[in-house]
Order: sequence, then structure tokens, then C-alpha cells
Amino acid sequence: MKIIGIVLAAGQGKRMKSKLYKVLHPVCGKPMVGHVVSTLEGLQTSRTVVVVGHGAEAVQAYLGERAEYALQEQQLGTGHAVLQAGPLVADEDALTLVVCGDTPLISEETLQGMIGLHQERGAAATILTAVVEQPKGYGRIIRDAQGFVTKIVEEKDCTDEERLVKEINTGTYCFDNRKLFAALAEVKNENSQNEYYITDVIGILNSQGERVDGYVLDDAAESIGVNDRLALSEAEQAMRVRINRKHMLGGVTIIDPASTYIEADVRIGADTVLHPGTVLRGSTVVGEDASIGPQADILDSKIGSGVAVKYSVLQDAVVGDGSSVGPFAYLRPGADLGQNVKIGDFVEIKNAKLGDDTKVSHLSYIGDAQIGRNVNFGCGAITVNYDGFNKQLTEVEDDAFVGSNVNLIAPVKIGKGAYVVAGSTITHNVESGDLAIARERQVNKSGYADKLRAKFAAKKAASKLKS
Amino acid sequence: MKIIGIVLAAGQGKRMKSKLYKVLHPVCGKPMVGHVVSTLEGLQTSRTVVVVGHGAEAVQAYLGERAEYALQEQQLGTGHAVLQAGPLVADEDALTLVVCGDTPLISEETLQGMIGLHQERGAAATILTAVVEQPKGYGRIIRDAQGFVTKIVEEKDCTDEERLVKEINTGTYCFDNRKLFAALAEVKNENSQNEYYITDVIGILNSQGERVDGYVLDDAAESIGVNDRLALSEAEQAMRVRINRKHMLGGVTIIDPASTYIEADVRIGADTVLHPGTVLRGSTVVGEDASIGPQADILDSKIGSGVAVKYSVLQDAVVGDGSSVGPFAYLRPGADLGQNVKIGDFVEIKNAKLGDDTKVSHLSYIGDAQIGRNVNFGCGAITVNYDGFNKQLTEVEDDAFVGSNVNLIAPVKIGKGAYVVAGSTITHNVESGDLAIARERQVNKSGYADKLRAKFAAKKAASKLKS
Amino acid sequence: MKIIGIVLAAGQGKRMKSKLYKVLHPVCGKPMVGHVVSTLEGLQTSRTVVVVGHGAEAVQAYLGERAEYALQEQQLGTGHAVLQAGPLVADEDALTLVVCGDTPLISEETLQGMIGLHQERGAAATILTAVVEQPKGYGRIIRDAQGFVTKIVEEKDCTDEERLVKEINTGTYCFDNRKLFAALAEVKNENSQNEYYITDVIGILNSQGERVDGYVLDDAAESIGVNDRLALSEAEQAMRVRINRKHMLGGVTIIDPASTYIEADVRIGADTVLHPGTVLRGSTVVGEDASIGPQADILDSKIGSGVAVKYSVLQDAVVGDGSSVGPFAYLRPGADLGQNVKIGDFVEIKNAKLGDDTKVSHLSYIGDAQIGRNVNFGCGAITVNYDGFNKQLTEVEDDAFVGSNVNLIAPVKIGKGAYVVAGSTITHNVESGDLAIARERQVNKSGYADKLRAKFAAKKAASKLKS
Repeated sequence: MKIIGIVLAAGQGKRMKSKLYKVLHPVCGKPMVGHVVSTLEGLQTSRTVVVVGHGAEAVQAYLGERAEYALQEQQLGTGHAVLQAGPLVADEDALTLVVCGDTPLISEETLQGMIGLHQERGAAATILTAVVEQPKGYGRIIRDAQGFVTKIVEEKDCTDEERLVKEINTGTYCFDNRKLFAALAEVKNENSQNEYYITDVIGILNSQGERVDGYVLDDAAESIGVNDRLALSEAEQAMRVRINRKHMLGGVTIIDPASTYIEADVRIGADTVLHPGTVLRGSTVVGEDASIGPQADILDSKIGSGVAVKYSVLQDAVVGDGSSVGPFAYLRPGADLGQNVKIGDFVEIKNAKLGDDTKVSHLSYIGDAQIGRNVNFGCGAITVNYDGFNKQLTEVEDDAFVGSNVNLIAPVKIGKGAYVVAGSTITHNVESGDLAIARERQVNKSGYADKLRAKFAAKKAASKLKS
Repeated sequence: MKIIGIVLAAGQGKRMKSKLYKVLHPVCGKPMVGHVVSTLEGLQTSRTVVVVGHGAEAVQAYLGERAEYALQEQQLGTGHAVLQAGPLVADEDALTLVVCGDTPLISEETLQGMIGLHQERGAAATILTAVVEQPKGYGRIIRDAQGFVTKIVEEKDCTDEERLVKEINTGTYCFDNRKLFAALAEVKNENSQNEYYITDVIGILNSQGERVDGYVLDDAAESIGVNDRLALSEAEQAMRVRINRKHMLGGVTIIDPASTYIEADVRIGADTVLHPGTVLRGSTVVGEDASIGPQADILDSKIGSGVAVKYSVLQDAVVGDGSSVGPFAYLRPGADLGQNVKIGDFVEIKNAKLGDDTKVSHLSYIGDAQIGRNVNFGCGAITVNYDGFNKQLTEVEDDAFVGSNVNLIAPVKIGKGAYVVAGSTITHNVESGDLAIARERQVNKSGYADKLRAKFAAKKAASKLKS
Repeated sequence: MKIIGIVLAAGQGKRMKSKLYKVLHPVCGKPMVGHVVSTLEGLQTSRTVVVVGHGAEAVQAYLGERAEYALQEQQLGTGHAVLQAGPLVADEDALTLVVCGDTPLISEETLQGMIGLHQERGAAATILTAVVEQPKGYGRIIRDAQGFVTKIVEEKDCTDEERLVKEINTGTYCFDNRKLFAALAEVKNENSQNEYYITDVIGILNSQGERVDGYVLDDAAESIGVNDRLALSEAEQAMRVRINRKHMLGGVTIIDPASTYIEADVRIGADTVLHPGTVLRGSTVVGEDASIGPQADILDSKIGSGVAVKYSVLQDAVVGDGSSVGPFAYLRPGADLGQNVKIGDFVEIKNAKLGDDTKVSHLSYIGDAQIGRNVNFGCGAITVNYDGFNKQLTEVEDDAFVGSNVNLIAPVKIGKGAYVVAGSTITHNVESGDLAIARERQVNKSGYADKLRAKFAAKKAASKLKS
């Protein structure tokens, strides 16, 4: 059976109070409508139609060729929205899923379950429902003796008995495609809002003798529809719980799932431990037996096995097996560390390849550089890669020793095993095995410290007199 | 109708196990009694009397002229406490709110609702009540057929039927002022604790044929009374939820409200995103479209629109529109950044004004300085503002380039467009357009690296022999 | 009465998906089986037998002489497991506690309560039970009119009535030791799993006319058994709540207990405030009136009273009263600060003693050093303690001033009150009261900045042409 997905994404979302169009607000790093379309892609829909309206261009720009688009120029109700997809798909023999673009948590498993029930029960329509403790405000699901749905009753139209029903409509549906569009054509807007409601299709199908069923969500939270930022934060939290749960069951220890933030596409090896405050984003991959965090913030990076990263920020970086990073390090795009590399505290690496066993222990900056194996950078040693116009390369070969507070002014090359003494500013290449020095000799002035202090103290006194 | 507020703040708070007087313990950055007085101020009380006892001086020092004070020298019960305010206010024609100083969550809306009911129902007293699942230990509210309160029954005096009542007394009241003090004069201390209870006023008023009503809290958590640090943390969390909710509904995205800490007076523009671990305190104002955090800790600062701050600590700082700060930056008091300024990693700014488009990218300290526009500070460049006695000014004019690891020894001035080469220690002014250099030339000693290594290795061997 | 503890720790824990043996997974920093053994130690058991199987060596290596060991070579059920302890303890007149090694939350108070009930009621066996809302899947506790337990019925064997029982078996037991082993000898493995179940002992004892009782847990969460990482994170959270609660009731303010991570053995003084994201581990001790965090990560350190630590990582460090650390500091093993020391931002201290009132304000590294009182380290001043082979000592005496970006190349000694000017690399000792300087004089080249820029711009243009 072919599956068609219709995503309702035309509403404005005024209560978001945002310049950003509602369905583009991200949940765990991915816009809400992106979650919905990803879920439909997982079901291998033959066609996915996104009904756009407010912010149509932005939504199309984001989704691109992942969907077809139908424009709903005026927002005249959910039935009207689905109807806009008619010219594209009304003729198809298919099963049609209607999903709101602001319900990012609806899962593939749920939709699959709903489709299964729909087919098994020979239904023309199946409603995704939820059983909740506080049904107030939601449309109630009324079923007959065989369990088929006879109608959806809105709060204001409920009898006292109907009001007690705890099964509600979540706004997600599965339809026989042809029957859907045939029924939609009959939906009227004779109501207080003058809108065309998709829920009226249920009554029409029932009156035609078609079967309508309801598929009950395991976890009602899946149906959260996001209309304001409060709901957005609740959806974010629910998605976070889902993602973290998957990793934990896969063998990752998460010390505090409530404060661990993992985006949907991140992969993590078994026996890796994630400490509190860890943020893993984008296409990040982490190996096995790693220790990540506290407070590791890693975007689009490849972290090897046995790596330790703490209190550090990484972006577009590669960290080889057994290396350690931080606390308080910053790996920027192009940082590419070999194995057993040590990046210590207050160190920035940018666009630089570092060979195995190299150490940059503290207060250093290595940018635009090619560093060999087993190189030692002393405290405060830096590459001077920028002259205000050009970014230039620094090369340091294997086994070299770059002393503390050394400036390597690029372009420059330090040969294999060379030794640069602390406090030197290096402007010329150093050959393999050579020692380079560029600093002034020390002069001690006997008893002069007190004279200097007296001078400074006098200055202070004078400045106080003035003020 | 005039409103009088009486705040009970005389208890010791032994279970806090603290040198700090109980009602002065802060919740979301503000002492509990401060929250209560702020709430009364919101209601425009004509007089606010704080009944003080333990720690009287500290409470008065904190609240100052925001309230009048009545001293309760001995703690002889809540009725006795209110009675101490009598000499100040007993003669007023007014409506009197009695609120405990350790219930920081009671909201203005709740008190307004209680006053509304009080007036509408012609009551002499209205009790703020809550309906809870676990009423055990609380005084039960007993109502008559018309819904008026006939009595408050303490746990130990409950009949079996009364014990099942889930509506409890929260200890907050609204009274007709004259009737309150008239009734208080009749309250006796003939009970096991020998204390004068305010709750006895209810029985007295009822016996006088006065009406007593109960106003039910929407959210029972509002009535949390803080007696130990566990309750303090619960109050803190509830206040946090309330504050964060307000910002979210106003258009701020908070990725994880549970780990976002915003004090009461902070203002934040729409479409700003707060990432986890963010702490916004004091009088901080954040513009629109900003990205704050993870782990941004900002106190009393003004953050412009479109600003990004991550993993940084700011205090008394100004950050202009479009600027970025961090990760791992520290802006101290007087840091004043123009627009599109970049403050990168491991950078401290203190008492320094930086013009638009200026960049301080890494490992720098700028203190006591006046920096122009479009200035570039290389990695590790610093101002040397302190000689042990005096803090002195560094000036850098527009378009200047300060090379890596340069020391600018204040007082010193770098002219417009001047260029200071890396590794220089600058002790004298540099005129506009000039280049300054202060570093030794490099000498390479051929093959000397290995000799040095042999020397160091020998030393190591010798030291091992010794130990 | 002697108490024997038998800990069941032989299972593999496949669902952990781990190379680490299940009971060795840590909860709040301590392996689960360690928690259980600590709890038994608290009860002063005369003997503690740990039944090991999978990972036997690792468990024995971890627990060492804290327990005796019985090997269960094949995992043939809980009854079989306990039976393995028989050769060691079957002959003792004692009361025997059987506890699973994967239930780290069972508390000493609970076991004490169970023992009390066991003795008071003259029971041969007492089962630790819990009353839960969702008993599905657990063995139900069936009691007689006097409240004694007549049997434990597994889910699959429940009658409809038994299925409604909400009291369940938690898998922890108290037995008369001789009766336990006598009954165990009669347990058969005639069931679908061919296993020997400890629960069969209950039926056997009952059939012998012995009394069996059930002790109901106050908090069902105590009985969490950890079988996967999801449960591990739940146990971690429950333990965290318990530890934090203890500190709060003892007078410590914890702003956000949900994101504060304190290991079991940490001690904290009253009126200390812990800010969010704080991690206190190992044997850390914190004094009174300290302010710790946000984001302070402290392992095995001694923090004095009145200390402030924020956004910093400390390990094996000592911080004297009134000192402040951070934001963004790193104290490594051997950092030993006196009183009123200031360690500022981007500072690392390692294996160094700093006297009272000394200041290291920013961007410094002090390693392998002995620093006196009232010393001032300027911004970027560092010790050069490592030559690639040797770690050598730097000494700085009281009242010395080490200027900004100074390199002190060890071994070297700066005398009392000496003054080292900014930008110097110091290779030789400086006597008390002397001033040391080691930097080149400044040369300004008039108008040369623009020439240099022209040269760099040309180079940039040329490189663009090439690419």
C-alpha cells in the first residue's frame, strides 16, 4: 500500500511571539516540521505534501526537495488545509497520514501502529487518540459497542456523560486517500469560526457507513502540539528523554539524563560515560569507553575511543583515540588530533593537525599549523598566524620542543627535534636538531626594587592629591 | 479601600541551621521577606508593618524604609505577633493582609483574588486556603452550607470526618482591620504551648456573627512555608519555574527551563534563546535575537540584540549589538563593548571601553583601557595596568594592530593605525602610523638541541641517583 | 544477635551492554556492590559473604578484605546463589540478611527496621516489601489475617484477586541463618527455568509452621534493582536526592539540588552555598560560609571556610580560608593555597604552595613552586618548570612582584621583595630587594606601519592570484 503524508504547516503561531515561523522552531536542534518529515521519511511515504501558508518560503527553503508543497493562502481550518493538497494527490490509491507540523514527537512506531490497526480493522479513517487525566478542552472520542469511533465531540458540545470521556483526539489521522478527499468536498464551514474542520470528515464517513477507528497512543506526551514557548520547552524535554533513553539502553552511561543534551543524529559507543551538562550536537560521533563532560559541548566532531573531554567546546574537530581535552579547551574547525594527544587547559586549536603523543598543556594557541608527533608545546607557546591580512602556516616536525611563551611567527618551520628556548619570538626557520633563542639577557639591578616602589608610591600619592 | 500589610518575620528558624536569620535567606537572589514586601508593594498597601524579633536589626537593615517595624520581643504565637502591630495600625479603617515572611511564593494575583472575594462576600476575615492530597499536619478548613468557614481545626483536634477534609489553612489572611484587633484582644493562650494563635480570631469572629470566608489557591505550591533548606530549595525551584514561564510566554526560548536560573528583575527580548546552565542575575537586560549560554553567568549587565555569549562570566558589563563573547571569557565591571566586537576564548576585560568591530580573540587581558574601533589584539596581547601601586590607562586608537604576546605597559598610547609587532614589550607611546618593535633577534645554534637534551638528561639521571 | 550479610553479585548484567561487570557500575561515584557492602558494614555484620560469578576477580579486587567470597560458577537461581555461601556460614547462629548487589539504594535504616520487626514478631524469615501502584511483573505478597506472609505469588501464577495486590517482593530478606540453609537444602528446580529460587524458602518455612513476615519500605524507590543503564541513571538520581537532602537538612544551601552532584563521603559546613552544576567528589571537605559554583568540580580537596570557587576544576588541592578561585581556574594535585589567596581566571596551579594574601590574577601557570606571602603575579606570568626532561623548582619569597608575561625558568629563586619587570625571561636568581629586567628596548619606526600593511596586502593579493 502506498502511503501519502500530508503535513499541516500553514498556521502563524502568534503565541510563539516570534519572528521565526512556528514550525521552524527547533526541538533538540531540528525544526519541528523537520522532525515530522523525518518521521514520514522513515515510513517511506511515496509522497509527502507540506501545506504551507505563513512563512511558506522559509519552510520550503528549509525542507527543499524533501517534500512537495501546497499553498494555503488563507487559514480557513484544518479541513481546508488538507484540501489544498487535493490537486496534487486526490487521485491516488493510497493511505494518507495527516500530521500537524507542530507535533514533533509523534513517532514512526506510533504511525506504524496506527496504520496496522487501520488496515486490520478495514477502516476508512483512523484517529490517533490519547487517554488523559485532564481531557478538558479536547475533542472527546465516542466509540460504539464494537470499539469503532462514532464521533468526535468538541468540549462545548459535550453532554455531561461525554464530558467524562478521557479519550481525546490528538489531531493526527490515517485515511483512505480517495475517501478522504471525497468527504472533504462535503465539509461545510457553518460554525462559529466559519472554518472547515477535518474532524467533520469523521461524521461524513460514518454517515456513509464507513468504519472509523481510533488508535490509542502509548504515551500521551507524544501528541504535544507546540503553540507557545512553554510547550516548546516541554517538547524539547520529551525529545531529550527519548534520545537519552535510546543511548542508555544501547550501553551509554548518562550520569544525569535531565541535564544531558544530545541531538537526534549523534552516535555514541558503548561504555562511554556522559557527565552532567554535556551537549552533543549535529553529526557528532563518539567512540567507546570515552569520558565526556562535565560540560563538554561538541558539535559536528569525531571523538575517538577512550577519549576524555571535560569543560571544553569543540566544533568540527577530530580527536584521536586515547587523547584528552581540557578542562577549558576550545577546539575550532579543522582541529585534528592524533592518538594520545594531550590538549590541556586554556588551549585553543584551530585548523591544525597534531600528530600522535603531542602535548599542548596550557595557555596556548595553535592555529593554521601542521604539528608532528611527540612535540611538546610549553606553557603559553603560540603560533602567530595572522598579520592583519594573511593567515599563514606554522610547521613543527616530530619531537621538537617549543619552550614556554614562545611566539612562532608564521610562515615558519621548526625542524625535527629542534629546541626553541622559552620566551623567544621566532621569525625564521629552525633546522632539525638546532636550538633557537631570541631573548634578551637578564640584568639585575641591586636594591632597585625599593627605589621603584618608592617612585610608584609617590606617583600614587600625587594622583590622589590631584583627584 | 486602604490596605495594610502585616508581615510576620520574627521567628528564629532553627531548622535552617544558619547564622543568617531565616527570612533573609534568598530565593532566586532575593531574601524571602523581600519577596513578600515586594508583593505587598505591588498591591500598593498604604502601610506595611514587618513584625521583627530574632535578627530584627538585620531585617530592618535589609528592608530599610520600605516598611514600618513592630518588635516582638518574645515569640508567643502568631496572634501575639500580629498584636505587636496594633499600636501602629489598630485604629485604621482598612483591610489588613497578614502574610508570613517565610512564604515567598504568595503572588500578587492571589492576594488580589483573596481581597476581591473578601469584599464581594462581605467577610470580616478571609483565609487563604489550599486543597492538597496530603492534608496531614495542617489545620483543616470547615465550611458551612453557604461555603463560609465555621472553623479551622488543628490535626490533633480533628474528628474522623474532619480529618478527611483536604482544604487546609495556609497561614495567610485578609481581615477587616478594626475587627482583627478587637478580636485579637480576646485571644487567650490557654493551650499546651501557652501561645496566642491568630487562628483563634476566626472562632471569635464567627461567635460574633461575622462572616469568615476561604479563598482557595489555584496552585497549592504558592503557600510553601520555608522552615529548612530542603523547603528553601523547593521554593527556589517553584520561583524559578514561575519566572521562566513568564519569559517563555513572552517569546524567549529556554532550551531547558529546569537548568536556567533567572532572577526576578531580569528583562529579556523576544526571540532570544537561553541555553542550559545560563544564570541571569540582578538588573541584567538582554536584547532580542541573542543567544545566551550554555553556561553564561551574567550579573547586572546590559546585553544588546543579536549578541552571542557562551561559557562566560559577565558582571557590570555592557555588550553592544551583534557582539560575541566566549567561550571562556570573563567580563568584569566596566567592560564596555561596542557593536560587533569579538571577545574570544580565555580573555578578560576589565574597566575598558572597546570600540565597534574590535577583536580580542584569545588569551588576552585588557584592563583599564580605552580601545578604539577596528583594533586587533593578537593572541596573548595584554595591558600591563598595575605596577603594584597604580592602575594606569592604556589607550589604543582606531585601526591599530597589536601583535601576539605584546605587553602594553601603562600608561601608554598606541596611535591610530599603528602596528606593534608580536613579542614586544611596549613602554613608550607609538605615534599614528608607526611600527613599534621591542624584541631580540633570533639566533639559531646548529646542532645544539641534542647537546641541550644530553645535558638535561644527565641532570635527570643525577637527580635520580640522589633520590 | 550476630548478623551475617550475603550479597548476591554473580549475575552478568547483559542488559547493561558493558565490558564492566554489572555490580561494579558506579552510582554517585561508588560501585553498586560497594554501596551494599557499606550499608552492611554500617550494621556491623559479623561476616559479609559476597557471592561472585561473572567478573568474580574484578569484584574481589574491588572489595578486597571487606568481604568473604563464595563462587557461584553457574547461575542457577537466587536460591542456588545463597546456597554457595553455605560452606562458609551455614553453621552460625545468626540472623542473615540477603541483599542483591544491584540494589544500591537499600538503606541501613531500612535494614535495621526490617531486623527489628523480624525479631519482634519472632519470624524465621522477613521479606522486604514495597507497596506500588504498578505491581505488574513482581511477585505479590499474600498475607494472612494476622499479617504474616503466607506466600509470594509470581505474576504468571496469580489469581485475579492476587493480581490486585499492590505489595510486592523486593528481593531483600532477613532470615534465621540455620533455618535458611536447612530450607534451602529442600528447594527444587522443578520450574520452567530449571532454577533454584530463594522465594521457595518462604513456602518451605511456612509449611514447617514458621512465621514469615514482610517489612514494608517507606519509599519503594529504595528497592530499585539496576539491570540497564536507564535504571542506573534512576538509581543515581535517587542517591543524589538522598545525599543532597542530608546536606540541606544539615544547613547547606543548595540552589538547585537536581543539578548538584555530591558523592557519598563529601563533608560540607553549615551556611555554605552550592550553586548549580557543582560536582563534589571523593574525600572533598568544604568549610562553612563558602560559595561553591556555579560549575565547581572538586575532587579529593580541602576547601576552607569563606572560600569562593566558581567555574573551576580542582583535584587534590588545598584552599585556605577566605581564598577565592576562578572563574576558570584549574588547581591540580599539590596546589596548596594559604589564606586570602586570589587565583583568578585562566590560571593553573600544580604542585605549588602559595602563601597567604598572594595573588595570581589571570592567565598564569604556577607549577612546581614554593611561593611566599603577599606575592603578586602579573597577567601571563608563568613558571617554566619543565625542560623536556626535568621538573624543577621555582621559589618566590614574600612580597615579591613578578611582572606580566614574565617567564621564571626553573630552577630559579626570586628573593624577598624583589621586582621582576614585565616581559622578562628570568634565568638567574634575583636577590632580595633587587630589580630584574630581561627585555629588549623599544624601537619605533616612523610611518612603517603602512609600509608593512602594503607588503602584507600585496602578499595576500599574490596568494589569491595563485589560488
